[in-house]
Amino acid sequence: MRTAAELLPALLEGSHRAAARAISWMENGHPEARPLMARLGPRLGRATVVGFTGAPGAGKSTLTDQLARRLLKGGRRVGILAVDPTSPFSGGALLGDRIRMGAVTAEGGAFVRSMATRGALGGLARATQDAIDVLDAAGFDWILVETVGVGQDEVDVVSCVQSCCVVLVPGMGDEIQAIKAGIMEVADIFVINKADRDGVEAVEQELQVMKSLAPPRPWDPPAVRTVGALGQGVEELEEALGRHGAWLRTQGGLERKALERARLRFRSLLAEESARRALARIGPEGTEALCRDIAAGRLDPYEAVARSLAP
Amino acid sequence: MRTAAELLPALLEGSHRAAARAISWMENGHPEARPLMARLGPRLGRATVVGFTGAPGAGKSTLTDQLARRLLKGGRRVGILAVDPTSPFSGGALLGDRIRMGAVTAEGGAFVRSMATRGALGGLARATQDAIDVLDAAGFDWILVETVGVGQDEVDVVSCVQSCCVVLVPGMGDEIQAIKAGIMEVADIFVINKADRDGVEAVEQELQVMKSLAPPRPWDPPAVRTVGALGQGVEELEEALGRHGAWLRTQGGLERKALERARLRFRSLLAEESARRALARIGPEGTEALCRDIAAGRLDPYEAVARSLAP
Repeated sequence: MRTAAELLPALLEGSHRAAARAISWMENGHPEARPLMARLGPRLGRATVVGFTGAPGAGKSTLTDQLARRLLKGGRRVGILAVDPTSPFSGGALLGDRIRMGAVTAEGGAFVRSMATRGALGGLARATQDAIDVLDAAGFDWILVETVGVGQDEVDVVSCVQSCCVVLVPGMGDEIQAIKAGIMEVADIFVINKADRDGVEAVEQELQVMKSLAPPRPWDPPAVRTVGALGQGVEELEEALGRHGAWLRTQGGLERKALERARLRFRSLLAEESARRALARIGPEGTEALCRDIAAGRLDPYEAVARSLAP
Repeated sequence: MRTAAELLPALLEGSHRAAARAISWMENGHPEARPLMARLGPRLGRATVVGFTGAPGAGKSTLTDQLARRLLKGGRRVGILAVDPTSPFSGGALLGDRIRMGAVTAEGGAFVRSMATRGALGGLARATQDAIDVLDAAGFDWILVETVGVGQDEVDVVSCVQSCCVVLVPGMGDEIQAIKAGIMEVADIFVINKADRDGVEAVEQELQVMKSLAPPRPWDPPAVRTVGALGQGVEELEEALGRHGAWLRTQGGLERKALERARLRFRSLLAEESARRALARIGPEGTEALCRDIAAGRLDPYEAVARSLAP
């Protein structure tokens, strides 16, 4: 499977190996990535894509695993993408992934992949969107996109999937509240995980207050209580996802989300590619010389960039 | 203060209002931002710049406040930049900021600013670096850069300050461990905050294990125990920062950090500016048309970008 033409048939048949290979191509900017992407178009738009974000420690991976397990039992094909911009690894080298590998893939074949591209030009959001297309084309019924943190990259990624779940836990501090304020607007469903802890009602009340302060939205995001570790509330979560999906289909929401997603992909890929071309024009030595002048205060970065982009 | 020439004198005299105005210019790409930045060069390189990162809830803002309070008592001028990519607000509208405003600025004049630029082209890392220069030129002795989360933006920002403090707390879960793995390499000092909780020794042992697994580094990052809420260990933290600063000066580390910082600034500003120019060439209507085609599967994003960047 060294060319797009060779890889495509296996991918369309749902081969996990082909999917993993294709995602690596997209991550690494392999020469066959573009030809492959160009052939996926007709096969896209069938998967249900759900995102999970929230503070580290909120139990997102456990929750994702439990939902995946439930969907697998129902005979669905499930792909999980774990987005972790802070990880130096990629391709599933994380502790969390190894846990998942054991928990989910062993018992019924979810596809699990860690997205952790770091390059100086970013590209994580773009690579994750590419991976969603790969899994969609490979015929996965559900694609669960899970973020480790709540950086802007990650909020961007989950804010344009079909259903964005923001995972909260009782008894977290002010910084969490600040983060909630930031991602409030992208939430389609609030999941109050570890709901067997004290303070669940407090979180639900805070959510009510925040909703009342936010501008009214056509879809009122429900709050679902779960205990991921025990699998409690996962059925209710799946039902809430079903209701949101049905609402999207009746309200033209799928097209709206698809357009938002296209805008994110286009802009992030454009930034990545135009910077790559600019750096290629300047060359490594030229870039290094400019950076040394900036570091020494001989040149300000704006001027350095203006020179680099001068026709 | 409507032009760089008007604002510069007030800024160099250390006016908080002038600093706030200048930072807004940098954030918003105001036409006077570049002329101002071009005049700061000779005044840079005097401030001690310290970064704080770590999981939400680790108590970074409290710790930053306590350190700021201590430095202010010692007669130093202190600026605090709170980097929060997930916040829809900017310019200090966050709960955390209001807390700080009350706690620190009231009692002796720290400058506090929330950095939360979101634009589709990012720019947060770049704007924060600009803000550091503004405060440096304004004669602040210490600039404390605090991140709310641990997204890549934020790790980038703190990884190139002079001293990067990674704040940990006892008893956090697997996801935190994964994040620690990701930011391990950028830590100059580990702060074990909330050290009055159980599990401090466990965290210290984990750190030892991770250090033993990581490639050896010329500077061995120490671990300092603090209880931010009580101000405990803040003196030790200041001493550790002093030792690291002295080490940097003797080892040419300041120049190395300045070069890393210049690379980050140049690349992020180059990506931002080259994408901005490409989008300007295509125009809003052209961009929207391409995004509609991508959303409908009629055009793949790579092809759309290739067309947009074609000379």
